[in-house]
Amino acid sequence: MESFFSFLEKRVDDCTSLLCIGLDPHVSDLRHPDAESALEFSLNLVKKTARYAAAFKPNVAFFEQFGAPGWSALAQVIAAVKHESERMGSLIPVILDAKRGDISSTAEAYAHSAFESLGAHCITLSPYLGKDSIDPFIVNSERGVFLLCKTSNPGSGDLQDVALADGELLYERVARLAAQWNTKNNIGLVVGATHPEAMRRVRSAAPGLWFLAPGVGAQGGDLQTALHAGLRADGKGMLLPVSRAISRAADPTEAAADLRDQIIYIQHQIQH
Amino acid sequence: MESFFSFLEKRVDDCTSLLCIGLDPHVSDLRHPDAESALEFSLNLVKKTARYAAAFKPNVAFFEQFGAPGWSALAQVIAAVKHESERMGSLIPVILDAKRGDISSTAEAYAHSAFESLGAHCITLSPYLGKDSIDPFIVNSERGVFLLCKTSNPGSGDLQDVALADGELLYERVARLAAQWNTKNNIGLVVGATHPEAMRRVRSAAPGLWFLAPGVGAQGGDLQTALHAGLRADGKGMLLPVSRAISRAADPTEAAADLRDQIIYIQHQIQH
Repeated sequence: MESFFSFLEKRVDDCTSLLCIGLDPHVSDLRHPDAESALEFSLNLVKKTARYAAAFKPNVAFFEQFGAPGWSALAQVIAAVKHESERMGSLIPVILDAKRGDISSTAEAYAHSAFESLGAHCITLSPYLGKDSIDPFIVNSERGVFLLCKTSNPGSGDLQDVALADGELLYERVARLAAQWNTKNNIGLVVGATHPEAMRRVRSAAPGLWFLAPGVGAQGGDLQTALHAGLRADGKGMLLPVSRAISRAADPTEAAADLRDQIIYIQHQIQH
Repeated sequence: MESFFSFLEKRVDDCTSLLCIGLDPHVSDLRHPDAESALEFSLNLVKKTARYAAAFKPNVAFFEQFGAPGWSALAQVIAAVKHESERMGSLIPVILDAKRGDISSTAEAYAHSAFESLGAHCITLSPYLGKDSIDPFIVNSERGVFLLCKTSNPGSGDLQDVALADGELLYERVARLAAQWNTKNNIGLVVGATHPEAMRRVRSAAPGLWFLAPGVGAQGGDLQTALHAGLRADGKGMLLPVSRAISRAADPTEAAADLRDQIIYIQHQIQH
């Protein structure tokens, strides 16, 4: 049995890429505001960028907003990633961007939905409800989670930056707990690329964990600064989700290849 | 324009009840593990308990686990509450138990999904991402949210009970922020009935907010203790979600009526 992050690292090595392609069918990017157009948008992106994708990250909200047909489109998109993976001979992990967080039997139902019903390999979760809300998602080491730690939005500081009695910030506590809870190599952290200083602190609190680091591009995060702040000592440990910068490019394949190459260049600078 | 909590209070007065009927189609309670049985289970419960329901609370996870047909069942259940409401001449609020929490355009898509696509009146949200993640759900005062504050599960203490530098506990900070943010009378808090001492502290930090207080019954919370700890000075301000204690009863109508009456009795004891 391979742990989720061993699986991800194998794919990262296969494609020499830390890019995570976000599948976010915003209504404004679709031909029509319906599930069929969301499916078409996503399948096109999968086909055009799979070669450079360390992972795909469909965002549930943009499918769910179309009701039952949207849910069906989401399942088809995940199946398409599997087919494309098989065609290439290298399995690409699917991270379901769902930010769920609930207790006991409800958490079990969400885990079933994500991993069995939809067939994703990993899911994003909120840590606010504590360890027992995460357990149903990590019981199988082949399936993984990214816990929200320091998010990329301006309001992330309202709670995440709160100073604790022992001197830590709340997001540092989350990082430290996640590192403790990660006994099966299947827990990572969401750390916004828009907050490089916070990313340095999280890296110091959790030296070995993988980060999912949104915010490069549209949200203003700088790629070089983020990689300097967040890469592990081995030059890995960070996935960079990008969606609009690739989906809205004239040539998404070229945009993904360019970004992949920029990341490799910076990785080498840092390593040598 | 009526705010969400004015709407809820009107319904509470109409039915003299603080009961929130949870619509949680656990697989173990269904004839078959499919969306059709989940629908049948939920419609039956709506029909049998509407008279005593201050609100209905469908839990998204138990529908989502059945994929697209589950999502379609969820929409039908919410529509059925509306029909039953119209038949009775008193509109019953639907609180979507979804515990979402995401940023900017993603939060907008979730709000659209809950309020427009599904037609719910209120949703449960995680506060971890801060105020800007909540804004898209509260911009319209007729729609409301319950923010997770102190949840009913054993692991809730991992983060929620953390002591802050200024002496508050994290869940008290959440309560105080929610009270500040509640400028349109459409923000409430989730406070587990399993932690009466925490409930007292939350009531003191947010004297005017409505609580959604799960945990009575199956999870071991005591009704009388919880009501003493959480009711507002006006004898209202708390919704008590109950699911299995009613759905598994030989006669769900009678079980709901009994529980409604117990609550009224305790309310009177406290008020006089």
